Parts: sequence; structure tokens; C-alpha cells
Amino acid sequence: MSLYQKIRQQSREFGQRTLDRHLRLGVTGLSGAGKTAFITSLVHQLTYGDQPAHLPFFSVVREKRYLGGQLDQRQALSVPRFPIEQNLQYLQQEPPMWPPSTKGWSQLSLSLRYKAVSGLRAKLQSRSELALNIVDYPGEWLLDLPLLSMSYQQWCEFSWRLFRQPHRQEAAKVFEQHLQACNQQDASELALQNTTEQYKTLLHQFHDTAGAYLNQPGRLLVPGELAGAPMLQLFPLLPEQAAENSALAKKLEQHYQSYCKNVIEPFYQQHFARLDRQIILVDCLTALNSGYAAMQELQQALQLILKSFHYGPTSLLTRLFKPKISKVLFAASKSDHATPEQHQALSLLLQQLLHQPLKLSHYQAATTEVMAIAAIRASVSGYVQVDGLAQPCIRGESLGQKSVTYFPGEIPDKIPSAEFFKQHKFEFLSLQPLRWREQEPLPHVRMDHVLQFMLGDKLE
Amino acid sequence: MSLYQKIRQQSREFGQRTLDRHLRLGVTGLSGAGKTAFITSLVHQLTYGDQPAHLPFFSVVREKRYLGGQLDQRQALSVPRFPIEQNLQYLQQEPPMWPPSTKGWSQLSLSLRYKAVSGLRAKLQSRSELALNIVDYPGEWLLDLPLLSMSYQQWCEFSWRLFRQPHRQEAAKVFEQHLQACNQQDASELALQNTTEQYKTLLHQFHDTAGAYLNQPGRLLVPGELAGAPMLQLFPLLPEQAAENSALAKKLEQHYQSYCKNVIEPFYQQHFARLDRQIILVDCLTALNSGYAAMQELQQALQLILKSFHYGPTSLLTRLFKPKISKVLFAASKSDHATPEQHQALSLLLQQLLHQPLKLSHYQAATTEVMAIAAIRASVSGYVQVDGLAQPCIRGESLGQKSVTYFPGEIPDKIPSAEFFKQHKFEFLSLQPLRWREQEPLPHVRMDHVLQFMLGDKLE
Repeated sequence: MSLYQKIRQQSREFGQRTLDRHLRLGVTGLSGAGKTAFITSLVHQLTYGDQPAHLPFFSVVREKRYLGGQLDQRQALSVPRFPIEQNLQYLQQEPPMWPPSTKGWSQLSLSLRYKAVSGLRAKLQSRSELALNIVDYPGEWLLDLPLLSMSYQQWCEFSWRLFRQPHRQEAAKVFEQHLQACNQQDASELALQNTTEQYKTLLHQFHDTAGAYLNQPGRLLVPGELAGAPMLQLFPLLPEQAAENSALAKKLEQHYQSYCKNVIEPFYQQHFARLDRQIILVDCLTALNSGYAAMQELQQALQLILKSFHYGPTSLLTRLFKPKISKVLFAASKSDHATPEQHQALSLLLQQLLHQPLKLSHYQAATTEVMAIAAIRASVSGYVQVDGLAQPCIRGESLGQKSVTYFPGEIPDKIPSAEFFKQHKFEFLSLQPLRWREQEPLPHVRMDHVLQFMLGDKLE
Repeated sequence: MSLYQKIRQQSREFGQRTLDRHLRLGVTGLSGAGKTAFITSLVHQLTYGDQPAHLPFFSVVREKRYLGGQLDQRQALSVPRFPIEQNLQYLQQEPPMWPPSTKGWSQLSLSLRYKAVSGLRAKLQSRSELALNIVDYPGEWLLDLPLLSMSYQQWCEFSWRLFRQPHRQEAAKVFEQHLQACNQQDASELALQNTTEQYKTLLHQFHDTAGAYLNQPGRLLVPGELAGAPMLQLFPLLPEQAAENSALAKKLEQHYQSYCKNVIEPFYQQHFARLDRQIILVDCLTALNSGYAAMQELQQALQLILKSFHYGPTSLLTRLFKPKISKVLFAASKSDHATPEQHQALSLLLQQLLHQPLKLSHYQAATTEVMAIAAIRASVSGYVQVDGLAQPCIRGESLGQKSVTYFPGEIPDKIPSAEFFKQHKFEFLSLQPLRWREQEPLPHVRMDHVLQFMLGDKLE
């Protein structure tokens, strides 16, 4: 971009911000929560979906004031771009497939046109415009945030409490024995590298363990251009070792500080702190399938993520980054993998995971909301007659193109006890997306509610 | 690093620079040229090698003024570090192995202590210190530089001239047919991505083709954190297509400009422009094995790289980056894979590849030199009696632990003709490193000359 173009773009952006015509929307979620499907649907609804029947709760559409959205062709060429066109192609394959998930962050810019409902803008302009930037990033990156408010010693204690949970303790045993055998005065390059490799092996095992959501530090397994930096020689010593003030503990403390300073802080400054609103997707059904320990850890992970949005005047985040996120939506994804009358329970379950009250609440600076949604439908719902009674069911295609019609089971409206999990196994299937052609609206569950909560006030 | 530490480090570095006590040495070479072995040896010679018999041409050692070097423990924790300790371990394995090559860039800081020979420094200090930063980066990154001085149209012409060389034309045919079938008015995301994928396939094929050194753009196959950025949708149209000013050509021209601005320029600013001296390793023997077309392309690649150091007052580089590289060494690596009396020819061959005169020459701003070296010896040389005559030979271990004693053949002192290559096949073997124990000096060929040329004047 030439200097001239840069100035032009900056002044355009500045102008839009001044007029409140610019919105940066973050979309995140832990791996597998459905970020890619969500953004694909969001963008398709906004660029295609001007039919009131398809988005009844999105008021700008219902009131026929929406004039359409389009991809902004002026998006910076040097920034990773969300591959919307490719993703829509996956959905049109025969049979349809879920678009592949991405590993890093990406961005997509849209411009939305509408008729303002009233006020100065309605009087002055026949149509108004909102520039929307959608920013996609892995939820795992948010899980590094708590490290900023912990010392290395506290991180070791935190990690080992986690590693002693039932679903983790078996895998962690080998690493624990390795640490016990380590010479605590040996902080040499080779010793550090060796133990880091052992810890990476453990993180890989955790990554493949159902319900092990909380793996830190987030960049150890995907170092990117930091590969080989000494600060990535980082692992939690056993708490009693960390307290010893040995050569090894001192070195790791330095690496920990460097990681906080050079990885975590820049992430927040570059991505997070510039967001206006945030959507966090949560796959509760897979956690239920995985059992009690998984639910406990999901709760812990979500509460750590929620802390990122607790930014009253005294919080760490406010002091460091002045974030300005004003609305946060927690969305229980894949709700169409259960029958519709279970959605209320799904939403309540997510609220309990978050310790959040039912309706909109002022959570310090940000307004939060919880919903059960499906960004792209994978099932149709209906009823079957069982012993003369109408029993709700869903129909979809499981992996391997087998058409299935079934009742997936009830969703508990609060976290079941460990006892209950022992007697009851949840088995929510994974379904493939419904068949869909490009010229049709993309079927969804409650994306209109999402759009209204996230964008409604900006399109008044 | 705290602000206080930062200020302290910066003022230390500033002090060292002011006193000319700080040197940044770049080490590069095309993939397979032996960068990792070179740096491993360089560092070992500097931290271990204070024996005059082992480094006779390194005057600070010969004159017994060298007090030793050590790794700088204060090196930034957030910067990729050259894994010297691990590499030395590979050499001590049974059987010894070459350390693995790295893909990105890394750095290693040393501090060297010596007695100054004369002048103020000798009078004031009993010992002097030089801070040496060694910066390792892929030579392929330098091959992107010429793009800065070409238009997109010129790059297409350049690329297709190259793709029509004998060793490339077969692989390029499929891509050429694909381009011919492309709708030149379709610059959609999907069309661009599709053709970029085809071009990536071609680059992968070239990468596996002996003698295909010059593959652009360098970041297409290793995008790192740029993955998904539209500017990486980049490929050379056929020259007649590029001249057409179609929608596709215009889009690719934009991506090309963005790549130059956001990938190439930052690389030079961050890494290249801050170097004081530069070593470029060249593996001529493998190119000879690969034949005439490979030699031609190696020559072309080296001359493009050499242009990076042509920075008279009017050059692009000077205007853009103010580089200050004052000495450049081109080293023909792996010279121990031939018999010693062939080293002179090897050095002459490299000089011809570079179009450089024999001895030190003032190449605009930088002094250049050419040498035949072996950073870490893989053979011992001797003689065998053949028909009563002493015939030079080398002994080493080929891959698969077979001990071999042989005469590897003559090295031509200029680039042989295409005709010659038809009648004669070069077959320089790959040898494994010699057995070595940590407390011994690391055997080499002419590393003392390298050290003297690169560091001698700074250790006076």
C-alpha cells in the first residue's frame, strides 16, 4: 500500500469510527467449538439473507430496512483473510462437508448498508453504512491470559492441580517422574530442551484427551516464527521444586516472564484490545459426551476466559490494554444436534458453566448474553410416533453418509454430578451439514438472535 | 525484560557500538549449502580453539593474544537461538551425524576476549572484548530481493525464461497448460486460490529437482504466520498474459506489490540491513553432480545474491535500507569431499560462478573474498600407490556407515561446457562427519582463514 493509500484508508477508518460506523467483532472458541462454520454462516446471512422469513428476529431485516452487505474489496492484502468462498464450496459438495478449521487468526471485512430508522442520520442520508471487521482467533490464545496475573510458582501449582484430575493423571505420571529425577541445579540448554520435549509430548497427549481443554502455554505446540526462542523452553516444575529457588527454577521463571512479555501481551495489544464486541462459541454436547472431568475443566476454562471480560477499573486487563469490548455473547453451538425442546436446557447448562444469570446482565463493563444456536443446520427436527405418543426426533447424516433419525437424548439443565455420569453416558452424534445450494438461504438456528444482539443497535 | 533491563542492554550495546566493540555477522547459503555445520564449527572454534596449531592463520590465536570466547548468557529470550549445544551432540553420536538443518532464522551471541595488539586500547585495558552476533537465515530469502526492482510483468518474463530451461521445462508444462486455460477476466478468490495451489505444486516439484535453486516467491511454501494473506495468492502468468492488463493480471500485480512491501522489505529492514559482515556458503560439488543446467542456474542465483551487496550510492538497496555490510565472504563448502590439490580449482570455479576476480577486490562498498573450506571435516586425505605412483585420495564414511577410500575426481577450475557434461558425470559422494569427542578441537579446512578474514581486524 502506498503512503497515499495508507493515509486515505486511515482517514476513512477514522471517519467511520468517529461516526460510530465501524465495528470490530471477535469470534473465538476452543478448538472444535465451530468457529469456522459460525463465521461462514454469519457472513452468508449478512451478504445474502435479506428475507424477513429467514431472519425474523433481526430487526433491520424484519423492518425491511436492510439493503444488503458485501465483502470489502479494500481489505489489506497482507493480513490473513477468512476463506469464505472456499468454505461455502465445502458446503456445496456432494455429500456436503464441514469446512476445515483454521489454526491461526484471520479477518474478513464487510460493508453493510441499511436505511436508518430515525434521527439525524435518517434525515441526512437515504442509506447508511456500517463497516464490520470480523476477527477469528483460537480460544486457546485467551487461555494464556491468566498467566499474566500469576507468578511462575503459582502457574506450577495451578498446572499440577489440573494434572492430578482423573482424566489427566495417568498421562501426567511419566512427566512427573521425569521431573522428580531432574537435577534442579542443571539449567543448561540441553537439560532444558530435553525436559521441554517431554512436556510437549505430554501436551500432545492432553490434546488428544477428551475434556482436556486447558493447555498452557498455548504457543508451545504451535510456535510459528518463534520456533527456537529460549522462552519456549517452558514447563511447570512440581510446586515443591518451583519453591526451591534452584538454578532450574530461576531460569524457568525468566522464560515465563519473557513469554508473558513477548507472546501474551503483544497478542492482546494487536488483536484483543482492539475488539468492540466478542462472540465465544462453546460445544457443550461434546463435553457432556466426555464425562464429568471434562465438564469440570470446561467450566474452569470458560471462567478463565470470562475473566478477560471482567474489566472494571482495577483489573489487570484495563491497566494493561484498555480493552473496550462492550458486548459478549456466549453461544452454545451445535444445538441442532439435539431436539428443539432441549435448547432451553442447553442454554441453562451453559449459563451454569459460566456462573451467569439468565438474562442480560451488566457484567462490569460488558453486557453478556447466552444462547443455544446452530450456525449451519446439520439436522431437521420432527416427531415420530412411539406407542401412540409423538416423540421429538431429529434427522441428519452421520459421518459415512448414513441417514439417521433418532432422539439424541435429554440435555441436563445443570452440570450433572459425578455420580450421574457414572450411571449415564451421553452420546450426541456428529452430523454432516444439510444439503444446500448457493442460491438458497443457509439454514440455521437462532442466527437472527445472534445478529440482533451483536449488530442490531448499530443498524438502527 | 523490564524497562530498566532494556535501557541497560541498549546502552551497553550502544557503548559497544560506539567503541566498535560489536559485530553482526550474517551466515547464509542456499538450502543444503552447510549453514548449520558452518555456524556450529565457527562457534566451537571461537569458544574452544585457542590452540595456535589448530588455527594457524587466525592471527589473534597465533600471536597468543586470544583469551577465549563464550556464549552470551544475556541473549534475548524471545529471539530464536541457534541450537549449538544440540548440534554438537549430533556430532558426538555413534556413528556421528550432521546436525539437522533449520528452516527459519536464528541468532547466537558470543563475547570474545583478547589482548589488543597496540594503540589506546592496549594501553588502557589488560583485555578487550568483542561482542559477536551470528545471524543465520536461509539464502532463499535473499533470492526474493530482485523482485523489488522488477515489475510484475518483468517477473513473469524472468520466471518463464527460467521455466523453459531443460531441467525445469517438463515439470512446468502442466502449469503452463493450466494458465492457458484460465479465464483472464476471472480474478475471483476461488480462481486465484486454485491457480496458486497449482503453482505451489510446481514449486514443490522444482524444490525436488536437482539444480532448481531459484524459486520465487520464497514465502509461498513457508508462509508461517502469513498463511491465508491474499498477497500469497501469487504466481507468474505467461508473459503474453501478464501484458494483457486483464482483471487477473491487475489483481496479481496488486498482490505482487503487497508481497514486496509486506514481506521482502521488512525482512531486509529487520535482518539484512543491520548486518556488518556476511558469509555466503555455496555447495559447488552437488551442482556439478547435477549437471550443466544446475551450474547455469547456480550461477544465476549467486549473481542475484551478489547484487544485494552492490550498493553504490545509487542502488535500490542503499536507497531503501542503508545497509552497511563491509565484508562478504563466498565460501565453497564441503571442500574435504575432494582431495586437497583440487581446492584451488574449487575456489576458481566459485569465482567464475560469481564473475569475481581472484583476490580481495573492492566490490563497490563491500570487500569480497572467495575460499574453499570445510567447516567440519568429513574425510582425511592421503595417498595410495597406483602403478608405483602416489595418487591422492580421501577416506571417510558414506551414508550407511561404509568406510570408503577413493579419489573423488577432479574439480574443473571453470564451468564446463554443456558438451563436457554430456560425456562426463561428476559423482562427489556425501560423507558423514568424522568421529569427534567434545574435548578435542573440531577438525576443519581453512576455518582459520575464514576467522581471520571476518574477525581478524576487529581483534587487533
